[in-house]
Amino acid sequence: MTASPSDAFVIAGKTYRSRLLTGTGKFKDFEETRLATEAAGAEIVTVAIRRSNIGQDPSQPNLLDVLDPARYTILPNTAGCYTAEDAVRTCRLARELLDGHKLVKLEVLGDQRTLFPDVVQTLQAAETLVREGFDVMVYTSDDPILAKRLEQIGCVAVMPLAAPIGSGLGIQNRWNLLEIVENAKVPILVDAGVGTASDAAVAMELGCDGVLMNTAIAGAKNPVLMASAMRKAIEAGREAFLAGRIPRKRFASASSPIDGTLG
Amino acid sequence: MTASPSDAFVIAGKTYRSRLLTGTGKFKDFEETRLATEAAGAEIVTVAIRRSNIGQDPSQPNLLDVLDPARYTILPNTAGCYTAEDAVRTCRLARELLDGHKLVKLEVLGDQRTLFPDVVQTLQAAETLVREGFDVMVYTSDDPILAKRLEQIGCVAVMPLAAPIGSGLGIQNRWNLLEIVENAKVPILVDAGVGTASDAAVAMELGCDGVLMNTAIAGAKNPVLMASAMRKAIEAGREAFLAGRIPRKRFASASSPIDGTLG
Amino acid sequence: MTASPSDAFVIAGKTYRSRLLTGTGKFKDFEETRLATEAAGAEIVTVAIRRSNIGQDPSQPNLLDVLDPARYTILPNTAGCYTAEDAVRTCRLARELLDGHKLVKLEVLGDQRTLFPDVVQTLQAAETLVREGFDVMVYTSDDPILAKRLEQIGCVAVMPLAAPIGSGLGIQNRWNLLEIVENAKVPILVDAGVGTASDAAVAMELGCDGVLMNTAIAGAKNPVLMASAMRKAIEAGREAFLAGRIPRKRFASASSPIDGTLG
Amino acid sequence: MTASPSDAFVIAGKTYRSRLLTGTGKFKDFEETRLATEAAGAEIVTVAIRRSNIGQDPSQPNLLDVLDPARYTILPNTAGCYTAEDAVRTCRLARELLDGHKLVKLEVLGDQRTLFPDVVQTLQAAETLVREGFDVMVYTSDDPILAKRLEQIGCVAVMPLAAPIGSGLGIQNRWNLLEIVENAKVPILVDAGVGTASDAAVAMELGCDGVLMNTAIAGAKNPVLMASAMRKAIEAGREAFLAGRIPRKRFASASSPIDGTLG
Repeated sequence: MTASPSDAFVIAGKTYRSRLLTGTGKFKDFEETRLATEAAGAEIVTVAIRRSNIGQDPSQPNLLDVLDPARYTILPNTAGCYTAEDAVRTCRLARELLDGHKLVKLEVLGDQRTLFPDVVQTLQAAETLVREGFDVMVYTSDDPILAKRLEQIGCVAVMPLAAPIGSGLGIQNRWNLLEIVENAKVPILVDAGVGTASDAAVAMELGCDGVLMNTAIAGAKNPVLMASAMRKAIEAGREAFLAGRIPRKRFASASSPIDGTLG
Repeated sequence: MTASPSDAFVIAGKTYRSRLLTGTGKFKDFEETRLATEAAGAEIVTVAIRRSNIGQDPSQPNLLDVLDPARYTILPNTAGCYTAEDAVRTCRLARELLDGHKLVKLEVLGDQRTLFPDVVQTLQAAETLVREGFDVMVYTSDDPILAKRLEQIGCVAVMPLAAPIGSGLGIQNRWNLLEIVENAKVPILVDAGVGTASDAAVAMELGCDGVLMNTAIAGAKNPVLMASAMRKAIEAGREAFLAGRIPRKRFASASSPIDGTLG
Repeated sequence: MTASPSDAFVIAGKTYRSRLLTGTGKFKDFEETRLATEAAGAEIVTVAIRRSNIGQDPSQPNLLDVLDPARYTILPNTAGCYTAEDAVRTCRLARELLDGHKLVKLEVLGDQRTLFPDVVQTLQAAETLVREGFDVMVYTSDDPILAKRLEQIGCVAVMPLAAPIGSGLGIQNRWNLLEIVENAKVPILVDAGVGTASDAAVAMELGCDGVLMNTAIAGAKNPVLMASAMRKAIEAGREAFLAGRIPRKRFASASSPIDGTLG
Repeated sequence: MTASPSDAFVIAGKTYRSRLLTGTGKFKDFEETRLATEAAGAEIVTVAIRRSNIGQDPSQPNLLDVLDPARYTILPNTAGCYTAEDAVRTCRLARELLDGHKLVKLEVLGDQRTLFPDVVQTLQAAETLVREGFDVMVYTSDDPILAKRLEQIGCVAVMPLAAPIGSGLGIQNRWNLLEIVENAKVPILVDAGVGTASDAAVAMELGCDGVLMNTAIAGAKNPVLMASAMRKAIEAGREAFLAGRIPRKRFASASSPIDGTLG
C-alpha cells in the first residue's frame, strides 16, 4: 500500500506524482544528469538559465536533448541573479527560449558567499513576474511572514530554504517550516539545505509538499544511488506524514506525550 | 537503480533483502498485523512468546496462521522477562513450540515503567543461550563496550535501543550508535525508539544493518501506510549510506566541512 | 578571574558592563519588576511605550519611579506596532516623553499570533528613524542578508530573534546567528526566544554581544531567581566565548574534531 | 538574589556550596592548576592516583602543595584502570597515601580509545569498595538501570557521562540523564563530555546535582577564564532549575506547550 493516488500534488494547475524536484547542474556530465534524474523519479527539473545551454548556444550540446521537455516539466531558474531586474530579465529570456513557457523558479541571491536570498529584491521580482503572467515558484528564507506575502502576491509555490544552498546542513528550523506549511494555500517546497535522505524525509513529515535539491544528489559519491535514496525518502516522509506518527513520550508507559518543560 | 543485490544482509547464515524487522503486537487484530507486515516488506517478524499464541493454546487463533513460517522468519522474543532465568526459559519454550528453531531475540528488561534493558542479566542470559546453541539476537542499551561484549559472547546480532521502547523519541545518541556500528563484526540493528520514517532513515545512514520496530507502525493512525513509509525509509537510509553523502558545510562556498569548534 | 574590564560592550557610544537587557512587562507588579531587574544586573531596560506608563498618564503609577532613568538606560520599544508608520510615530512619542532621548528599540510585527517581525516594514521604519536622528536598535528575523542591510542603514544594534517572542524554544538556527555575528560591525543581540539559562549561554558562546529577554524571566515560577540565573548565564557564555572552547571530538583520543560527514 | 543557602549539596555527609568539581590533570603546570581551580570555585578536586604525585614520589613536586587538603576535598580517582581489581587496588593505595581518606571516585574503563566505562567491572569494584568502607562516587554510562543499581550497592554519588571523556560533545541523551536524576536518592553528577559553559548549564537544568570536568577547562585556550565561565554556568543552571523555566510553546499566544507530535 502507498499514499493514495488522490494524494495529488498540483503546481500551476498541473498534477504530478513525484514530489522530488531536482536540479540539473553540478553533475559530471549530461549522462549522469540523465541517469540521476531518472533514478530520482523527478517530473520537474530545474535549469539555471545563466549556466545551462537550453538553446542559447546552438553550437553546444543542449540539456534538453537529455531531459526531454515532452517528458519533464522544465523549470527555468534565475540562479546567479543578484537583483530583481536581472532575475526578471532572465525569466523573460527563458520564456523566449522555451516558446512561451510560463513556469519559472525565481531566486534573487543576497551574496555570492552564502547564497542566502535577498528577500526584498525577491518580493519586487515576484510582483513584476506575476504581473507579467509568469507562474512563479519562489526561493525564499524560512520567514513565515515573507512566505505568506509571496503567496499573497500570487506565486504558485513558495520554496523556503532548510539551510544554505549546497550546505547539506539539513533542516535548521523545523518550527518555521511548520508555521509556513500550516498557513499556506499554495504548495510549500523545501528548496535548499538538504544533505541526506533523512533530511528530505523530515521536510515531508513536517507537511511540506515537496523538496527540490541538486547538490545533495550531484555531490554524493554515487549520485545515481543517492537519487534513488532521495526518491524513497520523499515518499517515506510523505506517507509518514499522512499515516499519523505516534507521539513522542518518555516511555511507552507515560500517560502523556513530552511537553515543553523538560529536555 | 537501487542498492546492489550484493548488498547482502545476513543473520545467522541466512540472507535477507529486507532490513526492516517488525513486531507483531499492538495491532488491532491479526488482519491488520498481516497487512502491515506485508506493507513493511518484512522478512523477519518478532513474536512475544509470553503474549502471543503460536500454538501454546490450541483453542485460540494462532498468529502463525497469519504469518506463515514458510514465508517469514519467526523471531521469538522474551518481552516481559525481567531476569536471565525467565528469558532463558522462554527461549527454550519457543524452541519447543517452533520445532527446534534456534533464532531468538533476547531481551531482559530492567523495569516495567521504562522497559530499559537490564544489561547484567542480559549478559548472563546471552552466555547461557549461546552455550545451549541458540542463535541470539540481543536487545541492549547503546553502550559500545557492552555491545562488543555481546558480540564476543557469540550473539549473531546486537540490537541497541535508539530510545526507550515505545517512546517514539528517535535516535538519542548518534555517536554511540556510530561507535557500535564501526566496531562490529556482526549485524547491528536498532531495536527501539523509532517514532517516524526519518528516524529509521537516520539509523540506516549511521551504518546500522537494520531496524526492528513495532509501536511506530502499530501505533500510527494508519498502521499499514506507516509500514510502507518505514519500508521506504529503511531503503532510503541504506542507499544514502552507501551513496556517500555530501559533507555538512556552512555554505556551498566554504572550503571545508564544519568542524567541532562552532555551533 | 573574569572577562577583562576591557571587554567593552558599547551601544550608541555608551559603554555597559552588563550584556543582559531586560523587558519590563509581564511581571506581577512594579515591585517584582524592580527586584528582577536588579537581580538580572541589567543596565538597559526596555519599555513598551504603548503598554507602559512612563508619564503618558500622570494619574497612574509611573514605571520610571521604579526604574530610575538616572540608573538605567531606558530603551523605549514599539511592541504592538504592525506598520512602519505606527512604529515611527511611537518612537517620536517616546522621544517627547523622555526629553529628547534618542535610543529606541524598533519592532514592527507581522502578525499577532506569532509576533514574527515584518521585515519589509521594519526596513522602512529603520530608514525613517535613522534619518530623523534616532539611535535604532532593531528587532528582526535571523536572516543574515537583512541583518547586514539594517546595519548598513545605520542601526546601532541588530537584534535577531532566536525563536518567536515568548516561545521559550531557545536558539533555533545557530548557523544563521553565527553568520550574522561574524559579518557585523555593530553589536548583535538576541532578542527573543530564550527559554532558560543555557539558551542565553549558547547565544553568547556564538559570539553575540548581548541578549534581551522578558518572558523567560517574568514568566518563570520564581522570576527574581531566574533573573539571577540569566545574569550568570550571560556572563558564563561570554567568558566561554572569550576563553576558547575545546573542539568537539568523538573521543579524547581522536586525532581531529568531528567533521560534517557523520552524525 | 541567588539560590538559597539551604540549597545544600551533600556528598558523604559533608556539605558543599560549589557544585562544580574539577580535575587536576592536563594543565600546563601546577600554577595553572591552582589558578583554574580557584577560578572554578571548586571545593572538591579529583586526582588521578596513577598519574599525579600526591606523595608517592617524595623527590618530585607534590600536587597537594598546590591544592591544600585543608582547603579542598581531595577526591582520588582510578583513571587508567581497566579492571575491577586494578581499581580497587588503586583506591586502597589512595587511602594509605591520604591517611585513611575514604572518599574515592571509581572509574573502570572499557578501552583506551573511547574511555567508555566498563560497567560490569565497575559494578564489581563498587561492591568491593563499599564493603571495604569506602565512600564511592562512581563514573558510569547514562544507563538508568545501572545508575540505580550503583545507588543500591551503596555508592554515595552516581556520575553518568554526558558524552565520552574529553570529547566536548555535550549532553548526548537528556532523557536518560533526566530519568537517572528523577529516580535517584543520592547526588547525580555529570562526569564527562562537557565542552563549554552551556553544556554545564544544561546538565544542571535537568536537575543534576553537580558536574565534574577537566578537559573542558584545562584544554580551553584560556583555562582560567573558562573555569570562571563554568563556575557561573553551573550556578546559572542550578538557579534556572530551581526558578522553574517557562514551557516551550510555538508562540507566546499558543494555548499549550509543544507536544510530541510535531517537530
